[in-house]
Amino acid sequence: MDTGFEGDTLLLVGVVGSLRRDSYNRKLLRAARYLVPRGVSLDIWDGLGSVPPFNEDDEQAPAPAVVAMRHVFDQANAMIIATPQYNASLPGQLKNALDWASRPYAENVLRGKPVAVIGASQGPSGAARAHAEARAVLGAIGAEVVTANLSLGRVSMAFDDTGRLINTEHRAHLEEVLRQAVRTARIRRAEPQANRA
Amino acid sequence: MDTGFEGDTLLLVGVVGSLRRDSYNRKLLRAARYLVPRGVSLDIWDGLGSVPPFNEDDEQAPAPAVVAMRHVFDQANAMIIATPQYNASLPGQLKNALDWASRPYAENVLRGKPVAVIGASQGPSGAARAHAEARAVLGAIGAEVVTANLSLGRVSMAFDDTGRLINTEHRAHLEEVLRQAVRTARIRRAEPQANRA
Repeated sequence: MDTGFEGDTLLLVGVVGSLRRDSYNRKLLRAARYLVPRGVSLDIWDGLGSVPPFNEDDEQAPAPAVVAMRHVFDQANAMIIATPQYNASLPGQLKNALDWASRPYAENVLRGKPVAVIGASQGPSGAARAHAEARAVLGAIGAEVVTANLSLGRVSMAFDDTGRLINTEHRAHLEEVLRQAVRTARIRRAEPQANRA
Repeated sequence: MDTGFEGDTLLLVGVVGSLRRDSYNRKLLRAARYLVPRGVSLDIWDGLGSVPPFNEDDEQAPAPAVVAMRHVFDQANAMIIATPQYNASLPGQLKNALDWASRPYAENVLRGKPVAVIGASQGPSGAARAHAEARAVLGAIGAEVVTANLSLGRVSMAFDDTGRLINTEHRAHLEEVLRQAVRTARIRRAEPQANRA
């Protein structure tokens, strides 16, 4: 196993903001798996549909799906959210997941965690407004939001038969997102106390 | 029955963005019922918790809870959304409901409908960021967003024993929200073709 010069394998967890079976955002995360640096693995979390509506009354006894989600997020060294935009903002179900992840607030599983936001849309905008809102939400939660981003418009023509991104510029942007997420995760792992609440 | 000088009763439907049993935003809508103009009734919709996650794959065959919600929204002459803010943005479940309401896009039940956004929080901000996001989302959906608003901070002391708002300024703001919603609904009802897609 090639673990890269840092010595340890890093785990990225991808979250798909859409529940659509043939989601372009899932395809984008699959394309990202071809581009992860050596010594890094990218798992795609598939539990979004099971997350219940966020309800403060249930904070002390969250549903098993919420406990499982928090465990997956907690294990990740960094996360990549790939999301579409609905009605100029975030998918509600993605927000439900982020709100559950954000509690208990002081020690939530996203606090200090490197999180990148990318995504694709069939229209020209590439879901940029949803991505900006996701970053604002992640900032409020206390995540370490990765600066590099990719808002990919006109996505239906973006992938080749093997699922790789065709356009070299898209590929370079996505590689930079992954690189920044990994770099931030490595720094965080080297100084865990400084980045944990 | 007093139906006011316009002759017909108008129906406002209130949506509570929080699922919490003792939600302050539900209390705010209940307080609004004391303030509705004559000839107007305000019903509070209680189906938010049953709405499934928005999934484009199910657009052609939405769940019964979605069909029921659209019927309630369609019957309303105007709507009042009262919502808290979670992590600097909308509650995910409220967004799920709005996304389901937004389809099919060209003839969605919120198109041209007067919708006001108000809300309360226990902190000082009054959920203002969530309210701004709700307005942007409603605008994208094609609703007629009511300009007047009320973002009520420090809400835990806001109501008296009967559930009325104590502060006269709060009450005046809420009355103005209701007045604008009703006025817009009356104009729309007088010219239905001009405001329907």
